[in-house]
Amino acid sequence: MNYISSKENSFYKFLKKLKQKKYREKEGLFLAEGVKFLDFKREPEYLIVEEGKEINISDNLIYKKYILNKNLFKKLSSQENSQGLILVYKYNESSLEKIGDNIVVLDKVQDPGNLGTIIRITDAVGFKDIILTKGSADVYNEKTIRSSMGSIFNMNINYLPEDELMSFLKERGYKTIVTALEDDTVDYSEMGLSHKNAIIFGNEGNGVGTNIIQKSDESIKIPIYGDAESLNVAVAAGIVLYKIREKI
Amino acid sequence: MNYISSKENSFYKFLKKLKQKKYREKEGLFLAEGVKFLDFKREPEYLIVEEGKEINISDNLIYKKYILNKNLFKKLSSQENSQGLILVYKYNESSLEKIGDNIVVLDKVQDPGNLGTIIRITDAVGFKDIILTKGSADVYNEKTIRSSMGSIFNMNINYLPEDELMSFLKERGYKTIVTALEDDTVDYSEMGLSHKNAIIFGNEGNGVGTNIIQKSDESIKIPIYGDAESLNVAVAAGIVLYKIREKI
Repeated sequence: MNYISSKENSFYKFLKKLKQKKYREKEGLFLAEGVKFLDFKREPEYLIVEEGKEINISDNLIYKKYILNKNLFKKLSSQENSQGLILVYKYNESSLEKIGDNIVVLDKVQDPGNLGTIIRITDAVGFKDIILTKGSADVYNEKTIRSSMGSIFNMNINYLPEDELMSFLKERGYKTIVTALEDDTVDYSEMGLSHKNAIIFGNEGNGVGTNIIQKSDESIKIPIYGDAESLNVAVAAGIVLYKIREKI
Repeated sequence: MNYISSKENSFYKFLKKLKQKKYREKEGLFLAEGVKFLDFKREPEYLIVEEGKEINISDNLIYKKYILNKNLFKKLSSQENSQGLILVYKYNESSLEKIGDNIVVLDKVQDPGNLGTIIRITDAVGFKDIILTKGSADVYNEKTIRSSMGSIFNMNINYLPEDELMSFLKERGYKTIVTALEDDTVDYSEMGLSHKNAIIFGNEGNGVGTNIIQKSDESIKIPIYGDAESLNVAVAAGIVLYKIREKI
């Protein structure tokens, strides 16, 4: 039984550091919270349980279990009504070498919840690869992990500098399709697909960067019929990616 | 100049109470945060500005402006990085008498962010009416307001008890279409529409209630092609409502 009650405990300090991106990247480990994660196939490195909470952990994982006293757990948790379980996982293995024929590109999507939701949608439509421009939200942010609902484990996700993105895609023969807000763009339901397609969604406030739009093969938009100004980027991704799924 | 620096100030106490649903309902007033709200047509009852923040308020609203000292503003704000502006609005006028031919029904959607996003989507597709079963999230919750991005002002939103919902819809000639998770349901792209349609989305964890599903005219689902378990309810609403928009 690994029981921790002191904030000076070195393993506890190590866990706390994983709440910061720079330490996550250094260690290649991230935190995920909630009993839901026990349902996913990926095996955690550690299971952190709040003292007094009954969590059903299978025998083969029991040696990875640590119990934190309530106060320490609360400081590690990022949820108001925690279920009392935080898991530590290794970063996904990711590679730009073997990416599929239909990929999603996110240009500076900022909100971790939106990023996680888009990861989940991309998984739902059966695409496996996401490229983010540098400056986008962190894939391993706890909010991203939570809203991805386990789809994080199914995906190949990579970052590229914005100025390398379009040449990377064109060299590999992708048709680049950006979702834009301008009026002279094609209705999303009429977009033309090639055998390889990269669908690019942009920042919540500013959309896709001008440089990327200018170099892209097609600009599409989702029409607004009512009085709303725009759609949330994750909702837009759902509509566009399911339309692509219909067409391919 | 209305400047408030004491937490005993009666107007400040009144504002604080609006963070609670029961007082919002009693007063028929709600809080909305962020300078974005100045862009919307609806006129606020009061504008609450954080001391020291420069907010550009038009002359005709200036007499409705109150300044709170930093400490009091922080307690009223629901945002970590506040822009320093909170507005107070009257509840929408709403009525079940004159609802449109295509309406959205939400059965116990719990997350205020999801509710606000669905309000925004419903507005975007040009539908004007939403019915929620009692027990759903509060339309005037600050998170709902924030994620609705002003679409809250364009909509006719009403609550009905779950056991009155289906008879209400059937008496008025709506075809009732539920989004379900079962395998024996129709693919959403093949749903049949009538001249009046009520599209029903359900709770994040449990979906639409069994009673409602049993009494509905059609069950549809969005297929999952990859390994994701499901889609976020707001994303599902976006996909289904834009599909309806294509068909009508």
